[in-house]
Amino acid sequence: MRRKEFTIEEEQELETFLQEMSFGFLGMSHEDGFPRVIPLNFAYGKGVFYIHGSRAGEKMKLLKQDTRVTFSVAKEYALIPSYFTDAELACPATAFFKSVTVRGHAELITDLEEKADAFSIFMHKLQPEGGYDTIDANDPRYIPQLKGVALIKIVPQEWTAKFKFGQNVKGDQRQHIIDGLQERGLDDDLTTIEMMKKYCPHHQS
Amino acid sequence: MRRKEFTIEEEQELETFLQEMSFGFLGMSHEDGFPRVIPLNFAYGKGVFYIHGSRAGEKMKLLKQDTRVTFSVAKEYALIPSYFTDAELACPATAFFKSVTVRGHAELITDLEEKADAFSIFMHKLQPEGGYDTIDANDPRYIPQLKGVALIKIVPQEWTAKFKFGQNVKGDQRQHIIDGLQERGLDDDLTTIEMMKKYCPHHQS
Repeated sequence: MRRKEFTIEEEQELETFLQEMSFGFLGMSHEDGFPRVIPLNFAYGKGVFYIHGSRAGEKMKLLKQDTRVTFSVAKEYALIPSYFTDAELACPATAFFKSVTVRGHAELITDLEEKADAFSIFMHKLQPEGGYDTIDANDPRYIPQLKGVALIKIVPQEWTAKFKFGQNVKGDQRQHIIDGLQERGLDDDLTTIEMMKKYCPHHQS
Repeated sequence: MRRKEFTIEEEQELETFLQEMSFGFLGMSHEDGFPRVIPLNFAYGKGVFYIHGSRAGEKMKLLKQDTRVTFSVAKEYALIPSYFTDAELACPATAFFKSVTVRGHAELITDLEEKADAFSIFMHKLQPEGGYDTIDANDPRYIPQLKGVALIKIVPQEWTAKFKFGQNVKGDQRQHIIDGLQERGLDDDLTTIEMMKKYCPHHQS
């Protein structure tokens, strides 16, 4: 899966993946011409990514100069050793992973109500079990905090997703990988087998 | 820890962290002015990062136009819920993590011997258990593969590392976080407690 237009089902999978992941990597441009990459927590809701940071920090400084950003979220599910499919050569060694990358513009959220809503999305994601009073732009305990922190939304203009689970591997080789994962049994190995089946072009309806 | 010059002990810790991590995020500049971020496997050795890719792929195209890159590796150890330290407000919610980011220039490796050495570092890292014949630039089975894949080294000019484990949290609050992690007991929670102690400014010699 590597395309810029998604089916409804694929969109649902992207959203599920983004809900599972707690942090991503923000790409910005530095004024000296170097790219800048910063790892940070994010929340995703209604097609928009939210990130936050210090109002006086580096992120805010860079984003004031150039709002064009890339945001990338990835999870490696399994390293696939070469010997799953080749007894001699190192070449088939690879990794199976999901990645979602968007590019778009970063917009500073200044309205307190919108900030409270965005932080609520953040908290709902990173602390779904609750345990805090509702974030309310009229609550005097929250107002100074809401004013003090910079909150940014990234509005994607373009999406790219890659879910790599051996879609190009065929026949025996494919079965050897499944058998190898089954036998190895690391935390994500069984999930990886499920993904291999789910995203196999021959299994799809 | 967030500085550009490291002690020998800190360098050792960075190296250990980089050996543990199998993938990072490469930041490049796109010709249209947008930053580009690509997640990929990497190897690190003797102060240099190695990445690889298709000779005809997007990475190679972008790097031919601009060799300036950023490479960032991060691991989130624990989400720290607000209620560990505050029964009411959401504000203290945070995450503890390690991140290492370098910036420098990407150089294409074309010499076959150097390529074989670099791929050996790669394999040693991602498949430490072995199970493949030594990668040798004179082995006719490896020569076409070595020629066919692009291998890039990133020579860092500047390092930044951030190991965030509540160094600024004091007294009771600190203890509440340790107790909370102990009680929650997720996979990395005990490691996180160790890191909190290791990087606590008051515990350091």
